[in-house]
Amino acid sequence: MKPAGRGRFVTFEGIEGAGKSTQLERLHRRLEKGGPPVVLTREPGGTPLGERLRDLLLDPGVGAMAAETELLLIFAARAEHLSRVIEPALAGGAWVLCDRFTDASFAYQGAGRGLGAERVAALETWLQGALRPDLVLLFDVPPDLGLKRALSRGKRDRIEGEDIAFFERARSAYLQRARADAGRYRVIDGAADPETVGRQVDRIWDAWLRGMDA
Amino acid sequence: MKPAGRGRFVTFEGIEGAGKSTQLERLHRRLEKGGPPVVLTREPGGTPLGERLRDLLLDPGVGAMAAETELLLIFAARAEHLSRVIEPALAGGAWVLCDRFTDASFAYQGAGRGLGAERVAALETWLQGALRPDLVLLFDVPPDLGLKRALSRGKRDRIEGEDIAFFERARSAYLQRARADAGRYRVIDGAADPETVGRQVDRIWDAWLRGMDA
Repeated sequence: MKPAGRGRFVTFEGIEGAGKSTQLERLHRRLEKGGPPVVLTREPGGTPLGERLRDLLLDPGVGAMAAETELLLIFAARAEHLSRVIEPALAGGAWVLCDRFTDASFAYQGAGRGLGAERVAALETWLQGALRPDLVLLFDVPPDLGLKRALSRGKRDRIEGEDIAFFERARSAYLQRARADAGRYRVIDGAADPETVGRQVDRIWDAWLRGMDA
Repeated sequence: MKPAGRGRFVTFEGIEGAGKSTQLERLHRRLEKGGPPVVLTREPGGTPLGERLRDLLLDPGVGAMAAETELLLIFAARAEHLSRVIEPALAGGAWVLCDRFTDASFAYQGAGRGLGAERVAALETWLQGALRPDLVLLFDVPPDLGLKRALSRGKRDRIEGEDIAFFERARSAYLQRARADAGRYRVIDGAADPETVGRQVDRIWDAWLRGMDA
């Protein structure tokens, strides 16, 4: 493991109910037992302003908004998150585990809302320059299973209220991005029980660390 | 005057206390007496979501935010404003009078915050394509006078709390943009009393209408 210098940026992606947040917490507990300092965060959110924007984005009472509006709000929250949390943590040598990042914008606004990947990519470069996650763990589940899990947690938020075709488009975009850049993405079958998925994450994580040392 | 077809898009720009909102209302009253339907709106704001974002942007309690965050929030409000208010109004033949638009982003975030004109221009094209105001009325005042007027209205908002150098940069950027595109911009001396400024606006407006007919 790299002993010092800049930290690593690992994102957890997937549609509703894919199990990413559960696995992020599980990996976080494992990493806390030793190794570099770890920062656990999420999008949209991660800062006080970002959490206010998250409330706005997920509030079903806000109703429909233009797809461009939604994407720009998410990038506004991301700008704050990058400058206040992610960049300082990485610069200080911490590892950042983030529950969703820009891949989710490609999946949800680019594909789900139909804005197209090019328009998301333009904002990605505008805000992030060359910054990309070092590793993206993509938890893949069929949307019907994911939504069933998400609904069992309670009320639908504004995004969870979308129809199944929306999540099919998001899932396809996620998988397409993973296939196009196998070096940075790992696809994990999220349909199994959390312990089974967790062991899969452990194996992938250990192999990735060995790959960095090699 | 063009009798039908697409409406015209006129924006009122200037730093705090330049008198633009007063003059916008004055011109609105005059136009209501005859001519095409007129829509009066403002930025940031103009939609329910946009007004919520305006509250966030002007709330001194929100504190500092990254310059990119501020600019993306303003463009998020603008996206909603364009798709819900401005574009439908123009397409329906109405004339839109808007209190601040993208020129303010060049002045405040591009110059005031130091993001630079190129980064603002990139978002402008991303969101607006080729849409630009048909006419920009720029009300020019020295920042010390403008701020004195703004303060006499009561408590400072988050932007009005900036120092005088911030508003000097914004004013210079406004004037520079006006000089670079004299066809679309008119600079109005905002230091005089409202009636004198109003007569100046009337003259400019009438000449602009004649120019369109010619």
